[in-house]
Amino acid sequence: MFYLIGLGLGDAKDITVKGLEIVRKCDKVLLEAYTSILTVGKEALEEFYGRPLIIADRELCESNIDNILKEAKNKDVALLVVGDPLGATTHTDMLLRAKQFEVKTQIVHNASIINAVSCCGLQLYNFGETISIPYWTETWKPDSFYDKIVQNFSRNLHTLCLLDIKVKEPTEESLTKKVRQYMDPKFMSVKEAASQLVQIIKRKPDTGITMDTIAVGLSRVGAPDQTIAVKSLREMQQCDLGPPLHSLVIPAPNLHPLELDYLAHFR
Amino acid sequence: MFYLIGLGLGDAKDITVKGLEIVRKCDKVLLEAYTSILTVGKEALEEFYGRPLIIADRELCESNIDNILKEAKNKDVALLVVGDPLGATTHTDMLLRAKQFEVKTQIVHNASIINAVSCCGLQLYNFGETISIPYWTETWKPDSFYDKIVQNFSRNLHTLCLLDIKVKEPTEESLTKKVRQYMDPKFMSVKEAASQLVQIIKRKPDTGITMDTIAVGLSRVGAPDQTIAVKSLREMQQCDLGPPLHSLVIPAPNLHPLELDYLAHFR
Repeated sequence: MFYLIGLGLGDAKDITVKGLEIVRKCDKVLLEAYTSILTVGKEALEEFYGRPLIIADRELCESNIDNILKEAKNKDVALLVVGDPLGATTHTDMLLRAKQFEVKTQIVHNASIINAVSCCGLQLYNFGETISIPYWTETWKPDSFYDKIVQNFSRNLHTLCLLDIKVKEPTEESLTKKVRQYMDPKFMSVKEAASQLVQIIKRKPDTGITMDTIAVGLSRVGAPDQTIAVKSLREMQQCDLGPPLHSLVIPAPNLHPLELDYLAHFR
Repeated sequence: MFYLIGLGLGDAKDITVKGLEIVRKCDKVLLEAYTSILTVGKEALEEFYGRPLIIADRELCESNIDNILKEAKNKDVALLVVGDPLGATTHTDMLLRAKQFEVKTQIVHNASIINAVSCCGLQLYNFGETISIPYWTETWKPDSFYDKIVQNFSRNLHTLCLLDIKVKEPTEESLTKKVRQYMDPKFMSVKEAASQLVQIIKRKPDTGITMDTIAVGLSRVGAPDQTIAVKSLREMQQCDLGPPLHSLVIPAPNLHPLELDYLAHFR
C-alpha cells in the first residue's frame, strides 16, 4: 500500500492518530521536503514518530517516484506531506501513477493553509481563487497572478496568496553542467510579497487595489508562535513576521462586521 | 483555556495527536453537533477518547455559549468540531466573545471539506468561491448561489457546493408555541442538490451550465467508504451516494489533463 499522509501545519503532534499509526507500521517512510516545511525539523519528527525518515526531494518525487511505487506493491510505504497531501499537483500525479502500477493507495487528510487561513478571522466561504506569488528575478517579473487578485477583489472576495518556496533549486550556472549545484533554500516573506505587489500596483493603477489597501500577513500558522499582522500593503513592505512559512491575504473591500471585529485584534 | 479542536472528516482517529492530548486533559469536553457530523457517532468518540462528551446544539453554541466561556476562565474546556474548527461563522464569533471575557483560546486545526475535496483530483488552486445550497421549501426557493457557480464557471474555476444540514430545527408549527418541537435531522444528498440545480437551469438558461454539464458527487470524504461519482447533472439526479455527508462540485469547463485523467476513474 502507498500512503499519502498529511502532517498538518505546526509541529510533530499535528499528525492525526490515524496517520501516526500508519507511520509506525510502515516498512518505509519518506518525508516530502520541497513543497512546504514544518516549523520543526526532520529530527524532531523522527523522534516523535520513532521512525527514521528518508527525505524526498523534488527529483525523487517527480522523476524517481516509480521505483517507490513499485516497492509499495508488496510493502507498506508512506510519503509524509506538510499540510494536506493533495495540496500540490505532484501528489495527485503520484496517485495516478500508482493506479497504473495497480498499487493500492490511501490518503490521510490534514489541515492545510487553504482552510487554516481562517485563523485570521476571514470567513472561508468569502475566499475566491487561491494564487501563488513567485520570486522575481532580474529579468523575469511575471504579474498575471495580480489580475486574479483584482478579479476576486472586484467580486468582494478575499485572496489567499501562497508565497514562493525554493528548496534544492539548481543554480542557473550549473544547469548546463554535469554536476548540479543547488541554491540555499529560500522562503518568500510577507514583506517581499508586499514589495512585489506594490511594484505591480505602480505599473497597473486603477484596479481598485492601492498601496493603502489592507492586507493580512500570516506566519507559521498552526504553530505556537503563529503571528498575524493587519496593515496596508505599503506598511507590510516593512513588516517582519519572523521565520517561514509566510502567507498573505488580500481581503475583500467590504468585510462582514464579524470579520472587521476579528481583524481589529491584529492591527 | 477554551480549546476549539477540529476532528477532521472520517472517524475517531482523525483527531490530531495534539487534539487528543488536549481532550484527555480537559475538565469538560463538548461536541458541536449541528454544523456537520462524522460517520461515527458520539459513543464511538467517547470510547476512543476515554472521555464523556456533552452534545452542544445550536441553542448552546449560539445563545448559551457565554456560560461555557466563563467556565473556561478557570478550567480547561474543549469544543470539538467536525472538520476544521473555523469553517463556520459561529466558532469565529465564540473566539471574539472569549476575548471579551479575557478567556485564553487555542485552535487545533484539522482537515475540512474545503481542502479534502481535492481527493476527487480537482486542484485546489482552481476552485473559486465556495457556496452553500439550502433546502428549498414549498414557498422558499432561493437561487442566488447559482449566480456564483456561473461566475466561477465563466472564469474557468471549480465550485465546491456545501449541502444543507438540518439538525434540531424547530418545526414551523411550534415556532409560535411555548414548547418547541423539532424536525428529524436531515442532510441534503447529491441527488437532491442536483435536482434543485436542474430546476434553476430550466429557469435560467444561457449561463453556459446545462443539464449535461459534468458534476462531481462526493460522500463521506475521508471515511473508508468514501464515494466519488462523476456524472452529468441530469444523471446526478438519480445517483444515490449512500449515507451523509454529501458534497457536490461543479468543475470548470476546461480541465487540466491531470484533472481529466483523475476524474475519469470515477465515471
